[in-house]
Amino acid sequence: MGLFLARQEVFETLDTCWLPAHKSPEPRLILPCSLSAFLRHPGLWKMFSAALYMTLLGCLQAQELQGHISIILLGATGDLAKKYLWQGLFQLYLDEGAKGHSFSFHGAALTAPQQGQELMAKALESLSCPKDVAPSNCAELKGQFLRLSQYRQLKTAEDYQTLSKDIEAQVQHKGLQETGRIFYFSVPPFAYADIARNINSSCRPGPGAWLRVVLEKPFGHDQLSAQQLASELGSFFQEEEMYRVDHYLGKQAVAQILPFRDQNRKALDGLWNRHHVERVEIIMKETVDAEGRASFYEEYGVIRDTLQNHLTEILTLVAMELPGDVSSSAAVLQHKLQVFQALRGLQKGSAILGQYQAYSGQVRRELQKPDSFHSLTPTFAGVLVHIDNLRWEGVPFILMSGKALDERVGYVRILFKNRAYCAQSERHWASEQSPCLPQQIIFYIGHGELGHPAILVSRNLFKPSLPTQSWKEVQDRPGLLLFGRPLSDYYVYSPVRERDAYSTLLAHIFHCRKESFITTENLLASWVFWTPLLDSLAHEVPRLYPGGMENGHLLDFEFSSGQLSFSQQQPELLVPGPGSAPRPSDFQVLRAQYRESPLISAWAEELISKLASDIETTAVQAVRLFGKFHLAVSGGSSPIALFQQLAMGHYGFPWAHTHLWLVDERCVPLSDPESNFQGLQAHLLQHIRVPYYNIHPMPVHLHQRLCAEEDQGAQTYASEISALVANSSFDLVLLGMGTDGHTASLFPQSPTGLDGEQLVVLTKSPFSPHQRMSLSLPLINRAKKVAVLVMGRTKREITMLVSRVGHEPKKWPISGVLPHSGQLAWYMDYEAFLG
Amino acid sequence: MGLFLARQEVFETLDTCWLPAHKSPEPRLILPCSLSAFLRHPGLWKMFSAALYMTLLGCLQAQELQGHISIILLGATGDLAKKYLWQGLFQLYLDEGAKGHSFSFHGAALTAPQQGQELMAKALESLSCPKDVAPSNCAELKGQFLRLSQYRQLKTAEDYQTLSKDIEAQVQHKGLQETGRIFYFSVPPFAYADIARNINSSCRPGPGAWLRVVLEKPFGHDQLSAQQLASELGSFFQEEEMYRVDHYLGKQAVAQILPFRDQNRKALDGLWNRHHVERVEIIMKETVDAEGRASFYEEYGVIRDTLQNHLTEILTLVAMELPGDVSSSAAVLQHKLQVFQALRGLQKGSAILGQYQAYSGQVRRELQKPDSFHSLTPTFAGVLVHIDNLRWEGVPFILMSGKALDERVGYVRILFKNRAYCAQSERHWASEQSPCLPQQIIFYIGHGELGHPAILVSRNLFKPSLPTQSWKEVQDRPGLLLFGRPLSDYYVYSPVRERDAYSTLLAHIFHCRKESFITTENLLASWVFWTPLLDSLAHEVPRLYPGGMENGHLLDFEFSSGQLSFSQQQPELLVPGPGSAPRPSDFQVLRAQYRESPLISAWAEELISKLASDIETTAVQAVRLFGKFHLAVSGGSSPIALFQQLAMGHYGFPWAHTHLWLVDERCVPLSDPESNFQGLQAHLLQHIRVPYYNIHPMPVHLHQRLCAEEDQGAQTYASEISALVANSSFDLVLLGMGTDGHTASLFPQSPTGLDGEQLVVLTKSPFSPHQRMSLSLPLINRAKKVAVLVMGRTKREITMLVSRVGHEPKKWPISGVLPHSGQLAWYMDYEAFLG
Repeated sequence: MGLFLARQEVFETLDTCWLPAHKSPEPRLILPCSLSAFLRHPGLWKMFSAALYMTLLGCLQAQELQGHISIILLGATGDLAKKYLWQGLFQLYLDEGAKGHSFSFHGAALTAPQQGQELMAKALESLSCPKDVAPSNCAELKGQFLRLSQYRQLKTAEDYQTLSKDIEAQVQHKGLQETGRIFYFSVPPFAYADIARNINSSCRPGPGAWLRVVLEKPFGHDQLSAQQLASELGSFFQEEEMYRVDHYLGKQAVAQILPFRDQNRKALDGLWNRHHVERVEIIMKETVDAEGRASFYEEYGVIRDTLQNHLTEILTLVAMELPGDVSSSAAVLQHKLQVFQALRGLQKGSAILGQYQAYSGQVRRELQKPDSFHSLTPTFAGVLVHIDNLRWEGVPFILMSGKALDERVGYVRILFKNRAYCAQSERHWASEQSPCLPQQIIFYIGHGELGHPAILVSRNLFKPSLPTQSWKEVQDRPGLLLFGRPLSDYYVYSPVRERDAYSTLLAHIFHCRKESFITTENLLASWVFWTPLLDSLAHEVPRLYPGGMENGHLLDFEFSSGQLSFSQQQPELLVPGPGSAPRPSDFQVLRAQYRESPLISAWAEELISKLASDIETTAVQAVRLFGKFHLAVSGGSSPIALFQQLAMGHYGFPWAHTHLWLVDERCVPLSDPESNFQGLQAHLLQHIRVPYYNIHPMPVHLHQRLCAEEDQGAQTYASEISALVANSSFDLVLLGMGTDGHTASLFPQSPTGLDGEQLVVLTKSPFSPHQRMSLSLPLINRAKKVAVLVMGRTKREITMLVSRVGHEPKKWPISGVLPHSGQLAWYMDYEAFLG
Repeated sequence: MGLFLARQEVFETLDTCWLPAHKSPEPRLILPCSLSAFLRHPGLWKMFSAALYMTLLGCLQAQELQGHISIILLGATGDLAKKYLWQGLFQLYLDEGAKGHSFSFHGAALTAPQQGQELMAKALESLSCPKDVAPSNCAELKGQFLRLSQYRQLKTAEDYQTLSKDIEAQVQHKGLQETGRIFYFSVPPFAYADIARNINSSCRPGPGAWLRVVLEKPFGHDQLSAQQLASELGSFFQEEEMYRVDHYLGKQAVAQILPFRDQNRKALDGLWNRHHVERVEIIMKETVDAEGRASFYEEYGVIRDTLQNHLTEILTLVAMELPGDVSSSAAVLQHKLQVFQALRGLQKGSAILGQYQAYSGQVRRELQKPDSFHSLTPTFAGVLVHIDNLRWEGVPFILMSGKALDERVGYVRILFKNRAYCAQSERHWASEQSPCLPQQIIFYIGHGELGHPAILVSRNLFKPSLPTQSWKEVQDRPGLLLFGRPLSDYYVYSPVRERDAYSTLLAHIFHCRKESFITTENLLASWVFWTPLLDSLAHEVPRLYPGGMENGHLLDFEFSSGQLSFSQQQPELLVPGPGSAPRPSDFQVLRAQYRESPLISAWAEELISKLASDIETTAVQAVRLFGKFHLAVSGGSSPIALFQQLAMGHYGFPWAHTHLWLVDERCVPLSDPESNFQGLQAHLLQHIRVPYYNIHPMPVHLHQRLCAEEDQGAQTYASEISALVANSSFDLVLLGMGTDGHTASLFPQSPTGLDGEQLVVLTKSPFSPHQRMSLSLPLINRAKKVAVLVMGRTKREITMLVSRVGHEPKKWPISGVLPHSGQLAWYMDYEAFLG
């Protein structure tokens, strides 16, 4: 938070104290391999601040200097250019040309000049003037724009050099200063590097003028590729020079989210949090399918196509803390980034996937695949996102997108909790007064039954304030039901003038409003969030759906305990689906013996579930019999999945009566990320309610020293155990097993802890940090139950070995685990056990 | 839990091993002054078990022995008798007489024989045969019943003796065994004692036959009077002999709650808990007002009239753990009692009250009150009940009842959480399949738009199982909306034959089904629960409402943080009501000086808000500058409101970077309710996320001892402070001020802590617990900021005094608070300051 505020200061300074622009070759932004590591690293942070500082300087004076601006549209004859970009540039010319700026527009492509010129002319034919331009003026304005626009082939390095020289000549000829150059990359990403290199080496404007490059998604396929692409671009451009477009940020209802939150602060301040929000739905439904785009779609799928970008961007706008000044790009971008930091990691169970029935056939046709080919690419996904901060903890954010659905519509719906009882019969509820009618705010992105962008606020909530020059109240349309209520139940506002997202964004590029674009950090943070889910779903078989109205309730889904599932059981397969790897649930938990004790084995996920539920059973029994449950847990990575499972799925767990002890600890401060206690805190304690005094971290940090013999931490812990745990016999000790046969922090040949009287000992580990504190084998063996959790491929060899050795704790400490009168059970996943 | 299971075992034994009946004079049930104390007391519990054991024996063989049963209806010519009881007795005769039992019915009252006979004859004239009796048979059956019924005056002790002798003679004459006698008290409660004494002394049947007395509410006016009445009755009757009627338990939809839960166990098992239930509404609305009953109503009011009994009984049926055998009276009664144990105590804020506008006038007329009289008796109440067990924690149970409302209806509605997202447009949701339509179960007690008792289950939930001989499926009634949905959305069942509650209950009395009646424990538990609320509301001014449809949204109410409030602000008073104290929001925060430091003063609520927001500002600044915020807080009651405010309203508080220290602590274990740390834990720590190692309780409990000098707890705390807090200078210290001028745990004349080098000291308090640990004045005065919070009327004198004294810490430790280089601010509410 200190860092956070320090950052804010930097931003605030930058926002208010503009300095003269100058070109800054160094430092370049470093792209970290992990965003969170990056954000925690002060050195990197300083460089980032510096980079950002430069970024903001890039924005200087675009609006003040009325010099010449060259806009180069790469891919000038492509679909996007034809459909939106030329029109957007025309709009920009109309808006800004009138203010005295001088423009030239260069349509560029690989096509030879003459042919390209013809194609471009065709694209420009259909330009239309906005409604506020008198038809009599339109032809003239269009003519002006066409005269400023010319096609040029950009293929070789020389082409770029020529372009740059031509621009310089043009500017000189006009007797103007050059203000800047915008390169719009409306080309496939594989072409980015070449173009970028050429621009950087040959097309930078001279000192005092800026360069802006506009990039279109996809920005990578996963975390790694996004990083590579970003690094590559980063070697040619400064962060401030890059404008990554997510055109959803230009859609009017989306662009209004932050201003709406800002202008209605007073009404929303008390409502915009977990105490009042029941759920948030961020939805993008399409009726079209992927026909004709199979080669793109088959590689990306719905999550990469819409959730990772559009829906995630919207999520951050809804969830972020509202900056004091929402017009400060720096503050907005920084607050967006904080949302990513608070996102709870996604797991396989966080999503449900679907694929419309015709999809595989389309892929086979378009990509010449054999008849046996069945795609696993999802065309429909629902994802449950949780944000672990004080504002949003526990509020479900539902992201859903799909093709071949029953309607085309996009919206963000914030549904508030119903905490009212209405004494009057419901027939007489008045929509403006009844607190029992649904209370919701909807940012209606477009299409759907309403047919246009809108912002809807339930009348029983508050009358919103919107800028009257751009938003107007909408008349009721009797008979129209939206989100369960007639339109008359809402205050409804729609844009005075509908404006295309691209023309909005082009204006934002011109005006340097960076908050409408995806920064490198933002992009990487999003991939850091989505990539693990994408990886875990890579081999999932999506549910097939017929498409359109016929989908019925097939794609309805529900959530509980952080997991999503389809509401209806899988119906008979509509077409034979692809085969898939066996899934955990296809197997039974295996019961056997290992070292003459019970062995429970299963795939990792199921094993963890089983162990968690066994622990709960043990806990409930202990609390019933003794009033409390003493559980000692180990550190390391395997228990983390267990902690998460216990935190999320076990509401009946008697936490209030559970004492938590550590089996072992590294001699680092408890707040150190390496501390075993940290794992316990982050993955379990944060989510449950164990009284403070039932938590027993090991005292490895007394008198500001780490595990000093003279501080007697081990003895202190031992006497705490003796005092609180009857007979020093834990109800359950959870152990792991190292590849060297160690358990707890008892390593082979340890001089302490393997036998003797001591309950708690200081030990040495061959791995850093070397100093450890550990329960001793004699203490462990006094437990009523001991569970050893062994997971993963790396444990195969030791698992085999230990199955054959006798009682040799000096060599293999784990072989010394054998409770005197308690029970021992081994929990091994198939990877560790079946090998 | 251990006790709980042991008890269950006892009951199960009792339920299955019937022993021969015998009269058991001892032990008598002891009536405890606090039910919960009673239930936790093992000795008392044993006696209760024994008493219950006897209770159950009383039920034996009523149905097997076909001897003679005498039923004496006391108050035979009263309203209840005329309206329900004679009809119920006739029904009982029809049902049971046919099985060979012999009956005689004695209508009794104080009226002289001949007049009484005439009145009774009139009452009996209107008896009707049930529909399943052929009209040709009706006259004959009615004649038989009339021949068995006779009036008798019961006034003197001799009257009772005569009655008993007459019954004996009658039985002998018929050559039968006597099975038992039922005395139905349909008389005002003031008459109970006399009648009970007479029955006990003169009218008990001989050995082998049972006595049952049936009692009608009111059963007391509060906990004390209910206890007195119960004690009195207990001196005449065994627990098993008493049947306290709550006629709601005889209503068909209410009587079906447990059987429904039992017969639909499979479907409900996973649903009937806090994870799935959104809320429970238990509602009884009346259109009639209290006209003509003012003398009763003015004494009781709506909570005593309907909530304490009817609605509470229903609550227990919904919330109780379902016994394995729902036909076991003992198990049902015991499980009901457990619900009472788990109820969270009610506070003033748990209820909202209303009074229909005409009420006070009616009271004035009927009770001859002066024109200036305004009643405070509520005729409308909404109460929010929480059940603190694992099944129901956090689920709101809304109880509401009122007179002069817009419709007459009673129902229990269980609304389930909506955890689904439906991918299809809502126009196409099918009510049986869509998980997005409301999911609810309603026990419709009667009246309302449906017009008859019913059980409704949303079709998207499950198809319920109901006994087909008594419940039938109901046809759709197009156009009828219930609970927001058309009737066709539900499976709807209604009774095959509507049956009056009293005839049901009379049958249950005959068949000894005690679970349909209120046991003494049950009754007292209910009063234990309701009395504190009634006391705290005694002087509340209810909101006036016009009555009927005109109420509009005036009585709608909402809950948050366990508090209820009307949704609409109090409108202009409809009639001049009693005046009320000014409210916090009527005043601004006052700024002034106190002891030459800033004084912030306001009404309590506003003061706490201001202090909380000042603390947040300080915290944010500290974290921005130093990366952390060191806050030291005091114990006691004033900070609790502050903790709650900080926990609920301050999402931006940098908790993750805040260190929490204690200003002082009582020398008790941290888990002791007296511990200052406990208050911090319960009201703040549970709701926020402060890392474990940022929490610094005072080490008052080392080596299993409390504040032993040799454990050096004070020194340990001091060195922890020195190590973590730069210059031992807290960012903020929050203090209070005692009526003796103490602050922290530094009391007048304290030999330690008022000066000197020590940072943390052990002190003695004049109040228990005497041993304390406290920050010293020198340490406090090193703080960057010190805030002293002083609230409440009791602080007035010391506030005045301290305003005038100089620096005299020996006499008034608070006068020694003056940070060397930091700031001091006084936060005093108007009660403490304005006096």
